Amino acid sequence: MKKLDDLIDVFAKLPGIGRKSAQRIAFDILEKSENEIDEMLNTIKTSHFGIKHCKICGNLSENDICEICSDDKRDKNVICVVEGVRDVIAFEKSDTYFGLYHVLGGKIDPLNGITTEDLNLKNLINRLDGSVKEVILALNPDLEGETTNLYLTKILKGKNIKVSKIASGIPIGGNIEYTDILTLGKSLEGRIDIE
Amino acid sequence: MKKLDDLIDVFAKLPGIGRKSAQRIAFDILEKSENEIDEMLNTIKTSHFGIKHCKICGNLSENDICEICSDDKRDKNVICVVEGVRDVIAFEKSDTYFGLYHVLGGKIDPLNGITTEDLNLKNLINRLDGSVKEVILALNPDLEGETTNLYLTKILKGKNIKVSKIASGIPIGGNIEYTDILTLGKSLEGRIDIE
Repeated sequence: MKKLDDLIDVFAKLPGIGRKSAQRIAFDILEKSENEIDEMLNTIKTSHFGIKHCKICGNLSENDICEICSDDKRDKNVICVVEGVRDVIAFEKSDTYFGLYHVLGGKIDPLNGITTEDLNLKNLINRLDGSVKEVILALNPDLEGETTNLYLTKILKGKNIKVSKIASGIPIGGNIEYTDILTLGKSLEGRIDIE
Repeated sequence: MKKLDDLIDVFAKLPGIGRKSAQRIAFDILEKSENEIDEMLNTIKTSHFGIKHCKICGNLSENDICEICSDDKRDKNVICVVEGVRDVIAFEKSDTYFGLYHVLGGKIDPLNGITTEDLNLKNLINRLDGSVKEVILALNPDLEGETTNLYLTKILKGKNIKVSKIASGIPIGGNIEYTDILTLGKSLEGRIDIE
């Protein structure tokens, strides 16, 4: 049945949903009333239309400037540079960071054709107008993340701004025995004096 | 952000999708272009509106009568009674059954308030007009399935129709050691002479 296959396809294309789950969702959709469907489609439409990127930091926002950038209580001296909005949410949940963010929208990845041109970099440079004292690089610790870190360190050099990088190491609750050698190396390299 | 939470909620309400997956899907949605979103919403709307239940068997169909009921090559002498349309799809995939189906839309389940009134039973009785020689009961082998089997056997009695029930037992590739005792009992009870 073409219409059923089309419906399953819609959900199978979403990230993390396999064919089997998509089928299950499609049947669930078919059992909903027309009102429920209208409400659902309307929410998707309204959200997609109403959520944009903050003009300062690139975070998601319902307004031109996001809640974090427009929050007077945040420390405007520190900018934490992240890859995506998901990372902002993760740091916010941790309730340990009270500065600002800058969302790059990816990292330098020449193999996949992503260059500095594709990232939200110009806005970052514009923000470094003297009030910013520290930039924390919080990209995922992989090859592309390190490449991007190197690039950012280079362009931030000579601007009299402290540049730091989040620590890599064994996750809390993790197990040394089962930790990969790269992480183990990082955990030694980044060791902290305790006395 | 209310709009983002609303969007996540839409997907978190779908079956088999947790909060974390719903969040991932929501971000994916936000990255789509307006055209892609319109196409997606349109497909959902069209499918929901265009797929109905077959007037004969209750299977999903784009027309009044489903593809199976209107297929001349199917054996009209046998009706396989199933709980839902998913079961029809499963049997069709197995490519081992060539008769007709009847979708009950559930099974008798007094604890959850589902009685014979809520099932697609009248249509089934109407179909037993003499051309049908066998009814195969293919409900899931649990308490409610057995209750429904008993009820159906009772109303089919005296109609000069053969009533059968699909076999329960150890699944192909299954392991006797790890099979629950009820299934083991059924596998013995339903043993087949091999010589």
